[in-house]
Amino acid sequence: MDAIRAAAEKAKEASYRLQDLALELRNDALRSVIEQLQERKQEIVSANQLDLREAQSAGLQSSLLKRLNYDGSKIQESVRQLESLIDQEDPIGRVISRIELDHGLILTRTSCPIGVIGVVFESRPDALIQISSLCIKSGNAVLLKGGSEAKNTNEALAKLIDQAIVGTDNRFKDAVQLLSTREEFRGLLALNDLVDLIIPRGSNELVRSIQASTKIPVLGHAAGVCHTYVHEDADLEMAAKVCFDAKCQYPAVCNAMETLLVHRGIAEALLPRLANDYEKAGVELRGDDPSSKIIKVHPAEEKDWWTEYNDLVLAIKIVGSLDEAIDHINKFGSHHTDAIITKDQTSANKFMDLVDSSSVMWNCSTRFADGYRYGLGAEVGISTSKTHARGPVGLEGLTIYKYRLSGSGQIVADYVGEKARDFTHRKLS
Amino acid sequence: MDAIRAAAEKAKEASYRLQDLALELRNDALRSVIEQLQERKQEIVSANQLDLREAQSAGLQSSLLKRLNYDGSKIQESVRQLESLIDQEDPIGRVISRIELDHGLILTRTSCPIGVIGVVFESRPDALIQISSLCIKSGNAVLLKGGSEAKNTNEALAKLIDQAIVGTDNRFKDAVQLLSTREEFRGLLALNDLVDLIIPRGSNELVRSIQASTKIPVLGHAAGVCHTYVHEDADLEMAAKVCFDAKCQYPAVCNAMETLLVHRGIAEALLPRLANDYEKAGVELRGDDPSSKIIKVHPAEEKDWWTEYNDLVLAIKIVGSLDEAIDHINKFGSHHTDAIITKDQTSANKFMDLVDSSSVMWNCSTRFADGYRYGLGAEVGISTSKTHARGPVGLEGLTIYKYRLSGSGQIVADYVGEKARDFTHRKLS
Repeated sequence: MDAIRAAAEKAKEASYRLQDLALELRNDALRSVIEQLQERKQEIVSANQLDLREAQSAGLQSSLLKRLNYDGSKIQESVRQLESLIDQEDPIGRVISRIELDHGLILTRTSCPIGVIGVVFESRPDALIQISSLCIKSGNAVLLKGGSEAKNTNEALAKLIDQAIVGTDNRFKDAVQLLSTREEFRGLLALNDLVDLIIPRGSNELVRSIQASTKIPVLGHAAGVCHTYVHEDADLEMAAKVCFDAKCQYPAVCNAMETLLVHRGIAEALLPRLANDYEKAGVELRGDDPSSKIIKVHPAEEKDWWTEYNDLVLAIKIVGSLDEAIDHINKFGSHHTDAIITKDQTSANKFMDLVDSSSVMWNCSTRFADGYRYGLGAEVGISTSKTHARGPVGLEGLTIYKYRLSGSGQIVADYVGEKARDFTHRKLS
Repeated sequence: MDAIRAAAEKAKEASYRLQDLALELRNDALRSVIEQLQERKQEIVSANQLDLREAQSAGLQSSLLKRLNYDGSKIQESVRQLESLIDQEDPIGRVISRIELDHGLILTRTSCPIGVIGVVFESRPDALIQISSLCIKSGNAVLLKGGSEAKNTNEALAKLIDQAIVGTDNRFKDAVQLLSTREEFRGLLALNDLVDLIIPRGSNELVRSIQASTKIPVLGHAAGVCHTYVHEDADLEMAAKVCFDAKCQYPAVCNAMETLLVHRGIAEALLPRLANDYEKAGVELRGDDPSSKIIKVHPAEEKDWWTEYNDLVLAIKIVGSLDEAIDHINKFGSHHTDAIITKDQTSANKFMDLVDSSSVMWNCSTRFADGYRYGLGAEVGISTSKTHARGPVGLEGLTIYKYRLSGSGQIVADYVGEKARDFTHRKLS
């Protein structure tokens, strides 16, 4: 593990150098990555084909092969993402607040990079480009570990990025490093003196296992048990449309609905219609006792209330009140994304105030919870933490702030005791 | 540990109720605490005298007895702090950003409470009032553990606060709970499914031991190894004054200077004068070899560069350049607070950009790093974390945000595929 500590120490040193690289330099580095991607397309595609062939002989599932694939059109998509990232405002050096503590003693709070980020991601090689470029833009050093099935692609991409950014400015040396083994990443999780943040991009199991084995802050979510609650007064047409989208538009992802809560007063009008739509889409319904009296469902067990199916399965429960819906969501949900369908603003506000989730929604589909749709540009991930960054996280989640105090020789002794000077504490624009 | 889980579950339920309590109610609760403190002053003072008598018989040091003391004038100080907290702006429900994703689909990011905070503090009973009131103002539930030597005072204060706030509104039930044993607090550290943030207020050893034994985010700092670097061109008068204040104004605290770095070009002019001032104040000097050729010092060892003396001891090192000073601070410091003395703005900016500390200062004393002096009102603590909150942390550090998306039946299926609608992503004021 000496090698991994050495890599992390190099990343820490790089992170210090990155702190004051001007925006133009960071953008130039990203432009150079774009150029290299276009020039060396064939090299990358060949490396990827090697991975694909090995994965095929190893009998990898076709869905995984599809995620592993990184061809010309995927490279173009990475280029488009890089271009859009270059256009984004500088997340670093932003003045968050300025206050005069006393005449000639000015306190400024400014955004700055976090430092060293450790990232583990599964399968998709485009994640390597996306996360590295977010780190470059935000002035962070990054240690990456990809899936072993994408080994050749990841190595080619990491080498390309390193050459592109170091070619732009030598201070980018060691800013993007690829770890080669799972053991190295495990070793990294122990280095809480050097690594400031861990971002896992992969299955819930991966996230949970990482959360359980590190003291470094982890940005991500282990589960996405999302709800839609249809209130008594909801527009039936809207409820049916939104509930269908939330479950069926892309069921394999974390912001898809897993449990539908329906107010008792609207259940008989809504459920038969919904059941019909869901049946056509092949959705298996698991309902509580009252719902089984209205539509045909498999009986739901308690574990259905906290299961993330990521599939065409839906749990259904009938509730007697808005309060009961809120309690159910706070008790069984994963604090990810939950929606209410209602015509009543007061009920909507109560729901959005009291449901303790990173995204709360009124009259729209839970599937909107996403960095791109939220206008954040690229997304680092969706966080269900209660500190630092919550919900879809973009560039801002890779920053923190520092206080800068500029004076003219002030000492604290002048502000204490009987003849103490007063602070002015005047907000500046 | 069933009892402690039950307490944390009650706190979690309380935290859900607190989410939408109006500012006026939270302020009324604080006003009621003020009233009760004034009415029941004698009861609190008697409880404190019991603690003081027991501590005296147990042979507690006089400095600890002084910290334990909570008399009429200390109560008045708590009242003043509460009044100032009532005057502070609402940290909750603040709109951080608003963006139109599409016509009639509005995303609002608003500040909200974190949830359940666990706090452990040593000796000072006023910390109980201060932290509880910060939690009440910010809508968080809190589980508190004080030092056993202040047991009677803490119990009386916790009871008083509970009665005052529950008397104001029943929804404050279980919002402030006192844990009685160290084992209970240890048990709390394991409940990362219920507790969202831990704040330790006490010795570096306490903070380190808590950081090592929980997966819950910890807000605080384990060390304060602060530096002042005097650049070649510094004003001698100012340098002498600021360096004296940083070391001597209150040496027992985390933002006092522990290491003085002096540029080679100014060392012969500055050090004899400083040594003279420090000698009068009884400061022991430990210097590197070059400094020992200019003034009388004990030889510094490597461990002096990362030791927090919290006492009248100062390590001194002569450096050849600004870069060497920055490297030394990033390598040996604790990322707490570091200052440069220079006439040159470019050097000052480089120092403040590249020193990776929560507070970086130019031409003033490190002792200014403090929530009150920074105008934050009361302080939860000073954080050296690189995520969530950094530097002196006030009310804002007890908040996070949630995304609220309000629509009119929008579904994601309309925004994908060939006939996809475009998002407008228009910033709203």
